[in-house]
Amino acid sequence: MSEKLKRLKELLGEVSDLNKAASVLGWDQQVNMPPKGAEGRGQQLATLGKIAQDKFTSDEVGKLLDDLKREFEGAEASNDDAAMIRVTARNYDKAKRVPSEFVAEQAIVATQGFKAWVEAKGKSDFSIFLPALQKNVELLEKYISFFPPADHPYDTLLDDYEPGMKTADVKAIFDGLRPKQVKLIKAIADSKQVKDDFLHKKYNEKKLWDFGVDVITQYGYDWSRGRQDKAPHPFETSFNVNDVRITTRFEADNPLATLFSTLHEAGHAMYEQGSHPSYERTPLAGGTSLAIHESQSRMWENLVGRSMPFWEHFYPTLKKTFSSQLDGVSLKTFYKGINKVEPSLIRVNADEATYNLHIMLRLELEIGMVEGTLALKDLPEIWNEKMREYFGITPPNDAKGVLQDIHWSYGSVGYFSTYALGNLVSAQLWEKINQDIRDLDEQIRQGNFSELLGWLRAKVHVHGHKYDPQDLVQMITGSKITPQPYVRYLTKKYSEIYGL
Amino acid sequence: MSEKLKRLKELLGEVSDLNKAASVLGWDQQVNMPPKGAEGRGQQLATLGKIAQDKFTSDEVGKLLDDLKREFEGAEASNDDAAMIRVTARNYDKAKRVPSEFVAEQAIVATQGFKAWVEAKGKSDFSIFLPALQKNVELLEKYISFFPPADHPYDTLLDDYEPGMKTADVKAIFDGLRPKQVKLIKAIADSKQVKDDFLHKKYNEKKLWDFGVDVITQYGYDWSRGRQDKAPHPFETSFNVNDVRITTRFEADNPLATLFSTLHEAGHAMYEQGSHPSYERTPLAGGTSLAIHESQSRMWENLVGRSMPFWEHFYPTLKKTFSSQLDGVSLKTFYKGINKVEPSLIRVNADEATYNLHIMLRLELEIGMVEGTLALKDLPEIWNEKMREYFGITPPNDAKGVLQDIHWSYGSVGYFSTYALGNLVSAQLWEKINQDIRDLDEQIRQGNFSELLGWLRAKVHVHGHKYDPQDLVQMITGSKITPQPYVRYLTKKYSEIYGL
Repeated sequence: MSEKLKRLKELLGEVSDLNKAASVLGWDQQVNMPPKGAEGRGQQLATLGKIAQDKFTSDEVGKLLDDLKREFEGAEASNDDAAMIRVTARNYDKAKRVPSEFVAEQAIVATQGFKAWVEAKGKSDFSIFLPALQKNVELLEKYISFFPPADHPYDTLLDDYEPGMKTADVKAIFDGLRPKQVKLIKAIADSKQVKDDFLHKKYNEKKLWDFGVDVITQYGYDWSRGRQDKAPHPFETSFNVNDVRITTRFEADNPLATLFSTLHEAGHAMYEQGSHPSYERTPLAGGTSLAIHESQSRMWENLVGRSMPFWEHFYPTLKKTFSSQLDGVSLKTFYKGINKVEPSLIRVNADEATYNLHIMLRLELEIGMVEGTLALKDLPEIWNEKMREYFGITPPNDAKGVLQDIHWSYGSVGYFSTYALGNLVSAQLWEKINQDIRDLDEQIRQGNFSELLGWLRAKVHVHGHKYDPQDLVQMITGSKITPQPYVRYLTKKYSEIYGL
Repeated sequence: MSEKLKRLKELLGEVSDLNKAASVLGWDQQVNMPPKGAEGRGQQLATLGKIAQDKFTSDEVGKLLDDLKREFEGAEASNDDAAMIRVTARNYDKAKRVPSEFVAEQAIVATQGFKAWVEAKGKSDFSIFLPALQKNVELLEKYISFFPPADHPYDTLLDDYEPGMKTADVKAIFDGLRPKQVKLIKAIADSKQVKDDFLHKKYNEKKLWDFGVDVITQYGYDWSRGRQDKAPHPFETSFNVNDVRITTRFEADNPLATLFSTLHEAGHAMYEQGSHPSYERTPLAGGTSLAIHESQSRMWENLVGRSMPFWEHFYPTLKKTFSSQLDGVSLKTFYKGINKVEPSLIRVNADEATYNLHIMLRLELEIGMVEGTLALKDLPEIWNEKMREYFGITPPNDAKGVLQDIHWSYGSVGYFSTYALGNLVSAQLWEKINQDIRDLDEQIRQGNFSELLGWLRAKVHVHGHKYDPQDLVQMITGSKITPQPYVRYLTKKYSEIYGL
């Protein structure tokens, strides 16, 4: 290895150590921290972030990158070091464009925004949140101004979550998806609704937890390199390839959510556990984008975890564990119940068929916010209109409408699409997997997930951040992200369930 | 505040944030980390340590300290900023004297030493540990050589744990203590032994845990600024004044140890929780020395937690909780049982009366090691001789003898004395407290600890690191650390228990 590359890796290793240390502090904050520890923790996180940022944007890193870009010019796409330099140089360029005073200002505005949002949501009063949102959007405009003009200003935001993805791409994908998904939901609405009362009985938390642990153990989540804890919001976080943790929560009125959130987060975690060990302490470690990450979590949660073969394997055990709750509930009834489609107000509780529409609604509003074609004060009204248009329902208040999501409160705009894109990618990969593993259903029916995980490891996980999302999907499936496989998946699944 | 002082506090704040972040990572490593996470965590800790050290020993900090020392020359001892500058300057001087290559070398030797010690202890074979110990001692000599010659080379090591304390002081203190303590133990050995079989029955772990939690809640440990977890070794750690955590462990063959270790660690934690909030993110935050720290933990564990008034309050509840184990065991029998004195091989399990002798033995050996008057290869033999001299027993093997403690494996020499000094200080403070709070026994009998904690807060805790240990003890009790109060305490307590 050249001396320059060695030195760059040394510096990036330190930056990674600082960022990962911050992740440990963040995890602890969610999982363990006593209530009054927040202020001190906030200072520690701010210091780690600042030092990591200073180290990363140092002139030495810039000089090394310039030299190494030349050294690796013309290297093959498969060259790890070349990829590392490319990804690092992109991150460096972004980081250099954003002044540290701006980062500090944004952090303050985000904190204020979050506070205002909590209060506004509590009182279900959008006007409390409006001034903070205004400030956050102003900062986004400023943020965009640091970058060269793109085809669309929203591109700059999107690129932070989905490197290389354009607003026009996402719009085109969603335009192809929307009518088909709306049509499907209409057809389902005209059918006889399935039963799911058995899902809303009282379930023992500990037993559900244990059941989820058993499932993800069979999935292949490596407990010697991870752990699960309780937290107010389920999430996955990684401190290094050998320490990838997940959290879950128990919802008394929706107990099975504990299980599905465990499967979801384990999907994220297995992605991170599969990143190539040689990428450790470099920007290639971990998942390549939020959409690809979400494709993994949604696959293990939905395409596997809400499938008939899965429950052919696991339902007998579940039924034995919860014999009174599931008394008289056949496998088929259970399967239909956990796949019930129902237009609903809240995104995070939405089923597979309606979920993406929640995302599209948000994308349209975000684009309007960034373009300036939408007056922020009109957001609640526009939100409710779109809810009527897509779902035929009107939120009874802002808390269950425009105020439901946390993201905008801290200036996170451009994030939502990745959820829907993740769904699409999960189905796109799934079609390819089923071509490669012809008896996948049968394997799942036997509770055998090793070939599936092995496929994902080899095709997706091991590459870490090496390939951009669109390139990775193209490489694996032969085309960029496309909605058709997901439409086919939904149509087939729900035609059976609802007898369409 | 002068600009220079402001800037210094800013820099020290960052150093503190880095060190405290490392503490979070260290806590997590003990409490949560999955087995394979160790390597990555080690790198993160090394990076944090290196950056903190570089930041602290920067020329800017040195220059500011020089200027501020002049600015605060002649300030009163009670001036917080002057104290902060004094303590920081001392730490800075120490840190500057030790080259970073040496620190790195010592870290490697410590890791090797720990490994060798684990193996040697496992096989009970000192010769496996000897080469690693040799290296560690060589590095200690080198470490001492970085500092100006002291009255005794051991002074330099001691000063890292007990600022301002001299080897001659400790020797004098221990010389005053040893004969009295040996005499007491002989007298006890000639008396009828007390019963304690009821302590070694099977106790339910969860119930013991809950009982301990109830006790320290009554003590005044603030749960909104702390938590307790399980860990292989009990310890206390603080991330800031509002996040001070403790751990405990369950020992099946010594179940009550869970309770007493909770009381012990809570004593440490309440000290840290009581540090003045304005000292946060400066070197004045936290406890002033290990001995003062230990005085707090031993006080709440022993002077309070193994006292008759304490159990007059808590025994009825304990007896109700463990009715079968304590069936027919009177309060008096129980009290005697938990205070049983027995010469034993293992320091950490030693009772109050014999504990200090374990320490004195180690101090004598450490001084010999540092002076070079003791051949390391002879350690097992000398150890065993001293065990016979002090306790009249001979360790059956090195694992239960010279290899029992972890400290020397990573080059920690100078630490042990602080345990014994802590015991002495606890009794010295205790006499003063009982002069100031005349009905303390009665308060404890009522389960009321608030006046006691208030006293400690005001006299000890709030000062953080502001006063050196000897000065603090002098300020509070009117004399420096002295063994007499502890001797009086032990003699009175054990005369009653053993009818001497």
